[in-house]
Amino acid sequence: MAGHGRSAPRNVDHAQCTDSILQAIVARDLREFVLVGHSFGGTVVCKVAEKIPERIRRLVFLNAFILKDGDSLVDEIPPTHAALYDRLSTESGDRTVMIPFPTWRESFVNDADLELAKWTYSQLSPEPYQPCTDKLDLQKFYTLEIPRSFINCTEDIALPPGEWGWHPRMSGRLGVYRLVQMPGSHEVIYTNPALLAQKIVEAGRD
Amino acid sequence: MAGHGRSAPRNVDHAQCTDSILQAIVARDLREFVLVGHSFGGTVVCKVAEKIPERIRRLVFLNAFILKDGDSLVDEIPPTHAALYDRLSTESGDRTVMIPFPTWRESFVNDADLELAKWTYSQLSPEPYQPCTDKLDLQKFYTLEIPRSFINCTEDIALPPGEWGWHPRMSGRLGVYRLVQMPGSHEVIYTNPALLAQKIVEAGRD
Amino acid sequence: MAGHGRSAPRNVDHAQCTDSILQAIVARDLREFVLVGHSFGGTVVCKVAEKIPERIRRLVFLNAFILKDGDSLVDEIPPTHAALYDRLSTESGDRTVMIPFPTWRESFVNDADLELAKWTYSQLSPEPYQPCTDKLDLQKFYTLEIPRSFINCTEDIALPPGEWGWHPRMSGRLGVYRLVQMPGSHEVIYTNPALLAQKIVEAGRD
Repeated sequence: MAGHGRSAPRNVDHAQCTDSILQAIVARDLREFVLVGHSFGGTVVCKVAEKIPERIRRLVFLNAFILKDGDSLVDEIPPTHAALYDRLSTESGDRTVMIPFPTWRESFVNDADLELAKWTYSQLSPEPYQPCTDKLDLQKFYTLEIPRSFINCTEDIALPPGEWGWHPRMSGRLGVYRLVQMPGSHEVIYTNPALLAQKIVEAGRD
Repeated sequence: MAGHGRSAPRNVDHAQCTDSILQAIVARDLREFVLVGHSFGGTVVCKVAEKIPERIRRLVFLNAFILKDGDSLVDEIPPTHAALYDRLSTESGDRTVMIPFPTWRESFVNDADLELAKWTYSQLSPEPYQPCTDKLDLQKFYTLEIPRSFINCTEDIALPPGEWGWHPRMSGRLGVYRLVQMPGSHEVIYTNPALLAQKIVEAGRD
Repeated sequence: MAGHGRSAPRNVDHAQCTDSILQAIVARDLREFVLVGHSFGGTVVCKVAEKIPERIRRLVFLNAFILKDGDSLVDEIPPTHAALYDRLSTESGDRTVMIPFPTWRESFVNDADLELAKWTYSQLSPEPYQPCTDKLDLQKFYTLEIPRSFINCTEDIALPPGEWGWHPRMSGRLGVYRLVQMPGSHEVIYTNPALLAQKIVEAGRD
């Protein structure tokens, strides 16, 4: 995805993120596929779906943002989180955000041991902030009838459970949708990849 | 239950549903039994309990409606669901409701594969709508002291989680009650009958 | 803990509960330890942490009270529960509370069979009520930066789920914290001690 990966330039906006995924799909002429978005990736999945709905068999959101029409990602996180990300972005010098290790360890990989927590942190690179502050026109997304699923990891506290939680706050915006749940944190892709794979299959099947 | 089963006449009201269960109990002279109600069945369990409380050892509600005194079932589902059921009932010609397959597949048997989802749908027959719109006098129910349990299936989205969810919205009306939970959808009787049986035992024991 | 244990005098207040734990720690010169509090024990953990923060490696709350500054425990339970405890305390003659067996069986050990439920009840002794009504100054606690975890048992209905529930109501007051969940009731120490031990390790590790 544009702006992501260690060597990628960080000065990108949300439209460039979406375009990079669209190009990857079109270049391979992918059709009848299941498109999975995790966390910030949910915002990109929604915009990609607006552009090529006829190619997509099902959308799967894995504790992902499904924004209200007109909102940015930072509009939908707790004010204390938004203030932290604003500050980190300003201090970075290049408008990127790198979550501090203690927050990553407790709120993102709470189901990992310390060794795995440190290793996963070593794999991260700073996140471009502009795509998180771009307000998204999602009018078309909310008219689409592509089948959709939401995978909720029950110990995910990257968003605090309750008023600001992933589920049912985000999932509830999907209309008729399929719910799949699994134990684990926001980063089950690191902490339980085998079960995640199984749940993606359950979420993605017809 | 009156109005249910393929060949049963559909022009029944809630009182007739209750009476048919009462008659089945009295005809067999059942006593000291555990009475389990699922979904709509919860409304019938509450009325049966009012009539023969001395025979019932424990009530078990499996993601079931426990209505507020004076409400009908449709009073306690989301307005969008109520509007859909109203429309389906009107269009049916005989005041019955048959959930469309896509909704059944995603919201009722979300933990099934497509083959099982289709088979379960083939077992359904239209639901009489009158019993869902009858407002129930439940004053006596709320004075009963029969022990009670609530089984919550954690992926049940037949009612949307949160404000309109099964648990704790319905369960919380039971006063002192026993909570038992299991993974699965609204239709675990099809998707995980062995675990459901075990959970009914845990819910039903003294 | 002062006021607890069959032969202990019951006329104690919250400060005496805290002091007894502090004394046990200092007498053994414990350092770099993980301090676990369950239920009422959470209120004591918070006060102990204020006194010897430099000795504590991490705080673990197991479905425990984390009170708002200035509140007592009874300020933070449903009014119907508070009224019951007030009445039981008055009737006891010595300002203690003994939960009636039916409430214990359904709301505290809902995952036990009847035999285990009865045995656990036989192990209880009346709880001094004064520590539950003492309003606690927790200003310092809310400035501490000791790492902290919350273990939530997903079938715990000792506090009713939702508005008055343990999680995320109590856990959400911890700021950056680690969430660990497990199936079971408020009394998993009796009903699933092996899994609880494993979860305490997951909650307590760095």
